[in-house]
Amino acid sequence: MAKNAFYAQSGGVTAVINASACGVIEAARQSNGQIGKVYAGRNGIIGALTEDLIDTSLESDEDIAALRYTPSGAFGSCRFKLKSLEDNEREYHRLIDVFKAHDIGYFFYNGGGDSADTCYKVSQLSEKMGFPVQAIHVPKTVDNDLPITDNCPGFGSVAKYIAVATLEASFDVRSMAKTSTKIFVLEVMGRHAGWIAAAGGLASNENYDIPVVILFPEIEFDQDKFMAAIQEKVEKYDYCSVVVSEGARWPDGRFLAEQGTRDAFGHAQLGGAAPVVANMIKDALGYKYHWAVADYLQRAGRHLASKTDVEQAYAMGRAAVEKALEGKNSIMPTIVRTSNNPYTWEVGEAPLSEVANVEKMMPREFISEDGFGITQACRDYLIPLIQGEDYPPYENGMPKYVTLKNQSVEKKLEPFEL
Amino acid sequence: MAKNAFYAQSGGVTAVINASACGVIEAARQSNGQIGKVYAGRNGIIGALTEDLIDTSLESDEDIAALRYTPSGAFGSCRFKLKSLEDNEREYHRLIDVFKAHDIGYFFYNGGGDSADTCYKVSQLSEKMGFPVQAIHVPKTVDNDLPITDNCPGFGSVAKYIAVATLEASFDVRSMAKTSTKIFVLEVMGRHAGWIAAAGGLASNENYDIPVVILFPEIEFDQDKFMAAIQEKVEKYDYCSVVVSEGARWPDGRFLAEQGTRDAFGHAQLGGAAPVVANMIKDALGYKYHWAVADYLQRAGRHLASKTDVEQAYAMGRAAVEKALEGKNSIMPTIVRTSNNPYTWEVGEAPLSEVANVEKMMPREFISEDGFGITQACRDYLIPLIQGEDYPPYENGMPKYVTLKNQSVEKKLEPFEL
Repeated sequence: MAKNAFYAQSGGVTAVINASACGVIEAARQSNGQIGKVYAGRNGIIGALTEDLIDTSLESDEDIAALRYTPSGAFGSCRFKLKSLEDNEREYHRLIDVFKAHDIGYFFYNGGGDSADTCYKVSQLSEKMGFPVQAIHVPKTVDNDLPITDNCPGFGSVAKYIAVATLEASFDVRSMAKTSTKIFVLEVMGRHAGWIAAAGGLASNENYDIPVVILFPEIEFDQDKFMAAIQEKVEKYDYCSVVVSEGARWPDGRFLAEQGTRDAFGHAQLGGAAPVVANMIKDALGYKYHWAVADYLQRAGRHLASKTDVEQAYAMGRAAVEKALEGKNSIMPTIVRTSNNPYTWEVGEAPLSEVANVEKMMPREFISEDGFGITQACRDYLIPLIQGEDYPPYENGMPKYVTLKNQSVEKKLEPFEL
Repeated sequence: MAKNAFYAQSGGVTAVINASACGVIEAARQSNGQIGKVYAGRNGIIGALTEDLIDTSLESDEDIAALRYTPSGAFGSCRFKLKSLEDNEREYHRLIDVFKAHDIGYFFYNGGGDSADTCYKVSQLSEKMGFPVQAIHVPKTVDNDLPITDNCPGFGSVAKYIAVATLEASFDVRSMAKTSTKIFVLEVMGRHAGWIAAAGGLASNENYDIPVVILFPEIEFDQDKFMAAIQEKVEKYDYCSVVVSEGARWPDGRFLAEQGTRDAFGHAQLGGAAPVVANMIKDALGYKYHWAVADYLQRAGRHLASKTDVEQAYAMGRAAVEKALEGKNSIMPTIVRTSNNPYTWEVGEAPLSEVANVEKMMPREFISEDGFGITQACRDYLIPLIQGEDYPPYENGMPKYVTLKNQSVEKKLEPFEL
């Protein structure tokens, strides 16, 4: 009798994580019975711990296909990091108990670095406990910081969103600069790595000469150098766009967003890096500004996804199943770039032991010497990832995303306290 | 000899103001010589005052056609309100002098309420000064607050952007709500009228049951009632989205954005209404939040324009020229809604004397009784305006917007001090 599979979404969701879910479920449905049912964890790994499983076999082929263009986590995700095996063997044992109870032989975990680690431990422990589960990690993170894989599904669409937003807002501020706004500041995600901020640099290309100054988390903020850079751009172009990473920091390690600001009740005010930077420019140079904080809009913006990203997210989901059927365990399918121009890529794989807990930062040679821009090497890396559009269907003016039935599987075990 | 035309863009730009420019220029080119050249003001009306004119006849038909899908002001705009005729006759006289020098018989002014007023005065004064200019106002404003016309070009695309952004971000927070973020706050434009905020209510429709609480500038902010509304939604849905207008105010008239916050230097901090509202919810109810400020992204976001809006913006530009050729003066073409479902509309016209300095607010019956949502009447009004998609062409992953040559017309007059 074929084993069932368990699939869960982990951590911050993306515009294309459901495309990976679509790949997993479609490949399992097409496995000629080698995989039984695919159960999804309701709200990620918490669904496994609490035996709160969703029976995806009750969803129509049409609805599963619609996951390909539906953003965010269709089964719910969670921020819940399992503790180390030594500190909390109980949780890992519970996972195995649930897998046993529902005859689950495949564990597909769709997430970033933390979930790769969990996935790795489940594979090790299940073996030790005599109920071996093939654990395959499906890469996902807008932060683009997983090692070995050339890039991470989810990132390409955020990069496209930020590149387009920076371009369009730059057109706006350019129109207004003569008598009004000269500075536009856009705050983007990426607390540790500047991959997303770098994408703002793509607003300037062979078609557009747009002044963009980028503040990366990797580069210590130098206020004087920054003001000089802004002034130089404004003198040349009459306006300037600034893309600031939420992770941009002062030399002493404080985020720019923490400016010692207090609200009326004396609480420290976390107002975002964008207004801080905008006010700083106004104080030093007197330029009128506008600022935006993209926040969830950037990672949920499926209406502007990268076709390349959608294809890769889907391919990673499918590859996870295919590799499981080849008997692979404790691995993550990866994206291997085989050529920049024309862009070509293929599916590879990496052992989870080498993926877990490794963060891939932006290489210094992707950031221009002055620290405020991207280099040609960075463009060569980024541009393929934003290629192509993949619009969702619309109905009555709005995207027609799918909401699944998400029916529960009957529980077989005692409740479990988280 | 056919008279030339002058065209200028005024005030905050939009995703579709260039579609109106396209309509004006294409209609003039097709006028069988009834209109000579179309000169555009560089940076709006300032271009007329300083005799800084752009010769649009030097642009290719292809580039002019590309204006239809290029956001923001292709000739530059400005925030520059001419003073009243009594206070500053000098500026109006200068306009007429420039029009005379360049044989301009048509004045097409593309803007909101202030520019309608300017347009009206130019028409009156030119007549009085013996150099009659046909002054036609082309409606444009994301604020949707011009009278008589059913709606304003520019608004439909912002409405679509905000509706889609609210939907997508709501999907995101719904995915995360179990263990993390339960509240998403989106700040939108509209200092006086809540039209744009109302569009956030479209995230919930017959396909989606999404909890959205809206803070309108028209409704005095009541913190207790607001917290009760949020709590009720979170208890039912486990999450809630909030759309807050930048113009939302306390009963004493202060904007929510001014919370008495001071930065490290003691300056009043204008941090936006979104973080204020988000922090307020966290303090009262303890829910984790995310917040975004859309700012320019919402009005520059041509990648997600409403097809209806693009068509109407273009039609208003064409109608301005056609009405001028019919001998009309001192009017504004309008959008007349003839049916809601199916949506049909036609071009009408309004005398500028009735347009200038009148602001159309949201009717109270468009806002739900509790003050936090939109009514069916509001939906019936809004839904036609976001219908259809009209994507720009892409090249290498990015929209391919046009940048015009914008060559200057030779000056004939003495310089003019602004």
